Amino acid sequence: MNTSKLRVGVVGASGYTGEELVRLLARHPRVTLSHAASRSLAGTPLVRALPQYREVLPEGLLFSDADATALAAEEVDFWFLALPHGVAATFARAFVDAGRRVIDLSADFRLGSAALYREYYGSEHPEPDLLVAAPYVLPELVSGVSWKMAALIACPGCYPTSIQIPLTPLLRAGLFRPAPGAVVINSYSGVSGAGKKAEAMYLYCEREGSVKGYGMPRHRHLSEIEENLSLAAGAPVVVQFNPHLAPMKRGIATTITIPAKGVSVEQVYAIWEGAYAGRPFVGVLPPGQFPDTSHVAWTNRVDMSAVADARTGNLVITSAMDNLVKGAGGQAVQIMNLIAGFDEVAGLV
Amino acid sequence: MNTSKLRVGVVGASGYTGEELVRLLARHPRVTLSHAASRSLAGTPLVRALPQYREVLPEGLLFSDADATALAAEEVDFWFLALPHGVAATFARAFVDAGRRVIDLSADFRLGSAALYREYYGSEHPEPDLLVAAPYVLPELVSGVSWKMAALIACPGCYPTSIQIPLTPLLRAGLFRPAPGAVVINSYSGVSGAGKKAEAMYLYCEREGSVKGYGMPRHRHLSEIEENLSLAAGAPVVVQFNPHLAPMKRGIATTITIPAKGVSVEQVYAIWEGAYAGRPFVGVLPPGQFPDTSHVAWTNRVDMSAVADARTGNLVITSAMDNLVKGAGGQAVQIMNLIAGFDEVAGLV
Amino acid sequence: MNTSKLRVGVVGASGYTGEELVRLLARHPRVTLSHAASRSLAGTPLVRALPQYREVLPEGLLFSDADATALAAEEVDFWFLALPHGVAATFARAFVDAGRRVIDLSADFRLGSAALYREYYGSEHPEPDLLVAAPYVLPELVSGVSWKMAALIACPGCYPTSIQIPLTPLLRAGLFRPAPGAVVINSYSGVSGAGKKAEAMYLYCEREGSVKGYGMPRHRHLSEIEENLSLAAGAPVVVQFNPHLAPMKRGIATTITIPAKGVSVEQVYAIWEGAYAGRPFVGVLPPGQFPDTSHVAWTNRVDMSAVADARTGNLVITSAMDNLVKGAGGQAVQIMNLIAGFDEVAGLV
Amino acid sequence: MNTSKLRVGVVGASGYTGEELVRLLARHPRVTLSHAASRSLAGTPLVRALPQYREVLPEGLLFSDADATALAAEEVDFWFLALPHGVAATFARAFVDAGRRVIDLSADFRLGSAALYREYYGSEHPEPDLLVAAPYVLPELVSGVSWKMAALIACPGCYPTSIQIPLTPLLRAGLFRPAPGAVVINSYSGVSGAGKKAEAMYLYCEREGSVKGYGMPRHRHLSEIEENLSLAAGAPVVVQFNPHLAPMKRGIATTITIPAKGVSVEQVYAIWEGAYAGRPFVGVLPPGQFPDTSHVAWTNRVDMSAVADARTGNLVITSAMDNLVKGAGGQAVQIMNLIAGFDEVAGLV
Repeated sequence: MNTSKLRVGVVGASGYTGEELVRLLARHPRVTLSHAASRSLAGTPLVRALPQYREVLPEGLLFSDADATALAAEEVDFWFLALPHGVAATFARAFVDAGRRVIDLSADFRLGSAALYREYYGSEHPEPDLLVAAPYVLPELVSGVSWKMAALIACPGCYPTSIQIPLTPLLRAGLFRPAPGAVVINSYSGVSGAGKKAEAMYLYCEREGSVKGYGMPRHRHLSEIEENLSLAAGAPVVVQFNPHLAPMKRGIATTITIPAKGVSVEQVYAIWEGAYAGRPFVGVLPPGQFPDTSHVAWTNRVDMSAVADARTGNLVITSAMDNLVKGAGGQAVQIMNLIAGFDEVAGLV
Repeated sequence: MNTSKLRVGVVGASGYTGEELVRLLARHPRVTLSHAASRSLAGTPLVRALPQYREVLPEGLLFSDADATALAAEEVDFWFLALPHGVAATFARAFVDAGRRVIDLSADFRLGSAALYREYYGSEHPEPDLLVAAPYVLPELVSGVSWKMAALIACPGCYPTSIQIPLTPLLRAGLFRPAPGAVVINSYSGVSGAGKKAEAMYLYCEREGSVKGYGMPRHRHLSEIEENLSLAAGAPVVVQFNPHLAPMKRGIATTITIPAKGVSVEQVYAIWEGAYAGRPFVGVLPPGQFPDTSHVAWTNRVDMSAVADARTGNLVITSAMDNLVKGAGGQAVQIMNLIAGFDEVAGLV
Repeated sequence: MNTSKLRVGVVGASGYTGEELVRLLARHPRVTLSHAASRSLAGTPLVRALPQYREVLPEGLLFSDADATALAAEEVDFWFLALPHGVAATFARAFVDAGRRVIDLSADFRLGSAALYREYYGSEHPEPDLLVAAPYVLPELVSGVSWKMAALIACPGCYPTSIQIPLTPLLRAGLFRPAPGAVVINSYSGVSGAGKKAEAMYLYCEREGSVKGYGMPRHRHLSEIEENLSLAAGAPVVVQFNPHLAPMKRGIATTITIPAKGVSVEQVYAIWEGAYAGRPFVGVLPPGQFPDTSHVAWTNRVDMSAVADARTGNLVITSAMDNLVKGAGGQAVQIMNLIAGFDEVAGLV
Repeated sequence: MNTSKLRVGVVGASGYTGEELVRLLARHPRVTLSHAASRSLAGTPLVRALPQYREVLPEGLLFSDADATALAAEEVDFWFLALPHGVAATFARAFVDAGRRVIDLSADFRLGSAALYREYYGSEHPEPDLLVAAPYVLPELVSGVSWKMAALIACPGCYPTSIQIPLTPLLRAGLFRPAPGAVVINSYSGVSGAGKKAEAMYLYCEREGSVKGYGMPRHRHLSEIEENLSLAAGAPVVVQFNPHLAPMKRGIATTITIPAKGVSVEQVYAIWEGAYAGRPFVGVLPPGQFPDTSHVAWTNRVDMSAVADARTGNLVITSAMDNLVKGAGGQAVQIMNLIAGFDEVAGLV
């Protein structure tokens, strides 16, 4: 073992986000995956539960039990939490109290306000002090460097990432000021976005050939989307968010319509160029070339492009990314890379 | 042979629309498929090109050559044209001149205005007098009965059908008066919508796992959509139409966002109830239950539902249908059923 | 209601086989679906659980409770059982005792011998007298007409149907006498073959892109396959049966390799011609044209063809069918059609 | 540019094999992709034709023209040929004559005998002297090290790799001696195996939901399969090879039935252990756990397992791999890694 490698662990390793983290961390050149914890798989060799990643998994590693106290005592440099909301907070508390660094992929620490959490998640936030302290880090959009010092970091959600990457720089630049509900966002997610839930509606036979809406008009990710777009705009932003399922495993395709009379597509591209030039994980495609979920599958990249519609005065922006990579595990690894001072793309290309 | 059956023929039988017409007409209890014409397949037995429909195909029938003059001389009660735009007009002319009835599935006779045709299709309309005379028949929305006398009928396009069925009654009722570009329509089509074109972008390996936009901001179907929505509203309607491809063979899923402050979802349902009660091919689902393309595949039904978003003041309407059935061949057969006085659902359930 | 229609009912209407029976019986021109029973859905309107079949479902029909005694008292001409093995026998007993006719789609009455049942299903057969009495009816292969008098009929399994249709006539004709294990059968089933089980391995995300074997070397269907092939051959037949899952909802593709030195492909086709000429649901394709699961989806047809390999002395036969139609619900309806004296294809094209 | 990196080039970069090579070489830590040649794409930036690999493609690189003479003059350490058979030989000749090293992924140099080539490919071999000289290198099975000196190496085909990895060690060990045609091999390939051909049969709408055989009984890969299995057995081996298409982009699932009375599954595993212990790209799964194409997609691994069937005396072996990686581009890179003295897994995990 290379002793200079960081030691990293995943809690909640049996879902799709957890599996993706295990895959990415196991093949990462600068870290050692020392722990993968899962209540349901405790004691099982990783290679048995995840035979598909056989050649990158640490030899002999078994799943640990998902016991917060016991895990907090382990020598681990970064813990990644791939747990349901509510459960994640318990582990975050224990790990932070034990002086460990935590990157949380649940929704528990993404919002700035405990009141908004209560409104969308239906219960009091379990750790409001951590909520306040935890920076929300979308690497391409976060400001400054002080966030790198935080013990606990909230990793953005999948839909919100596909939306903020194209929209936030435009709002920051004040390119438009949308009326409430006038920005319309349609997102189409691969089925893995629902997690590895053994429910009839996620069976192969139910989803093959199926495109359908769900969760409208008030999907939970709205809270995260609007809070951050509002911060970017410096004023409240209220959007129409229409989530759907599409018949594919990986991927989110998002189409955003913006009333923006007088705004040219060149202005959009100029702002994007300013925000993202040199960033390895943003692919800006020319107008008329449309992002494709199959082109970003298994990558940490968001592709996007824009067209202007002279007839309507609207901009139409489309983006595509892999919900399990840039929308979850890959983004978390990217965050770790930046904190640890690794190459931003380490383990991600 | 039952001599009381009507004799019907298809021209352009080698594409997906043509195949679907052959399938539906061959199993229709009140008609005999007497002709299937295709330049590329002339002389081939139908059963060889379409082995999948073996048990319904007329025994021994061969593809005819697609020669307009020769076909016009045949004793055929209804001709269905599944041809590219421009080509369809030539056959329509010949058949109408020979006194045959024609249901055209191309875009050639869908618009009311030759100028609009020129604007969207880039050439002069080849048969402007037929264009003026041919009624545009979406069976659930057409008025009166005089259209049943027409020699030539224009069958609506796939996207336009998925949009008009939910929207037209609301516009006719004056439920809202949308500002230009404020109604946002996102549609996701199965790959068969592109036809049976041997182009790299439609290969299995390019489309598996792929959701992506295309043809924005000015898809040709916009002309048909807006012309008809404007007629329904009694005023010009300009919409944002965002078409996409999704990884499935059959199906269109459409999501429409409408700024409609003060309009309740109950009003929407009441208007739909008034427009569609008893209509066999419109499925109105309760709010919160979302249409699913896999639930309408191989059927002639459009499913739809609506939710109101109190936060934004928008209505969100979703619809789903099979682009090859209700969006093409099935709708054409439904039109024939109505003209011929058959049960509306004959051959379609 | 047309009083001359037969009244039919389905028990176990919430699985994929049950749903398919409901679909087929609801659109059948000669029967009325009077009952659909399901423990989990009792009291629910059919249209709510199966919105995809909205236009064919009997208006207002609710799922009954799956109570054998209560259902046995209903006036129903044919009961179709789509239940797990073991459970089916209980209902069959009650219905037969009440003088009803039953077509059972489970494995409970497919075998001729209670000992074989015990060997493969691990428990005593619950109703051995019914087992002996119930004819096993593969419509294209059953002999005579006396089976039409039986109160209880066993409908063949999906894999066995795809295998017997091509093989049985050849064995009956004594075309070859295979040594034990020398006939090798590889079958690839769509995921619906596993039923509507909410288990992780049948999730969309697990099956997309996945072809894999399972259940080898001793799948339960082997008992049914070998018992019937042995009857056809007049001698014990022991085969190698390799079942697999493939990424599709509907379909079984079977490939059979037979050591048959000296046998020509013409002999095979001649025997098939003798056995199946005029049968509507057997599609014999010429050598070199291979059956395709997508060509038989939603049909009650088995397609098949054969090639001879001069190098190896083997015949290779391939077949394709829809596991939910010819492999389950469609075959059961075909059986009813024959018993009731309807057109064999009624409700099936 | 790191001057210590090798310079590598791909000819035929517009097909699926070529694209895969570009992807793998572009992200390989020890090489620089200096040339990608394609007649149809000459002059186009790589990033425009392959936007999906944006973050790994060498900045600014354009496709070269596929001109053998011009390319042979370039300073390139390894050329990879992803060309149709026949065409590959021309480039191999030019490159070898210019003193370059070549790894050919076509079928041109896989056979040992020009007569066999003529028999299966229907024309004289264009470069018989190169054919004799070029070693056929399946890295896990090739003997000795002298092959590393060869100027031209033949990379095995996809089906043959999925078959030889499990079978060759067993034949070398003399575990069984199969009679002609008694070993039955069924393979199911993802659609990318057909290449990026714009033909109707490879359209999305033709392949969705489709499992079907093709090319039986005499697929061209038979020549390569049997020549190599015969070498392993030290005697002629004649097998039954049944290739099929399955509805997925990537993957080959192979199921092999072997009459092997008296051979135990433990013997199989012991031989595999001896042959493959420590080899990074062979995954031996325990009996009863079956390889899954979705578990090897995007990896260079072959998974395999075996069961013994006491009833038939047969062994049933199943394997799965990604036809584009281990079956094409990945294997070629693995060969280069071994020749160049890199870590065998460099660029492949």
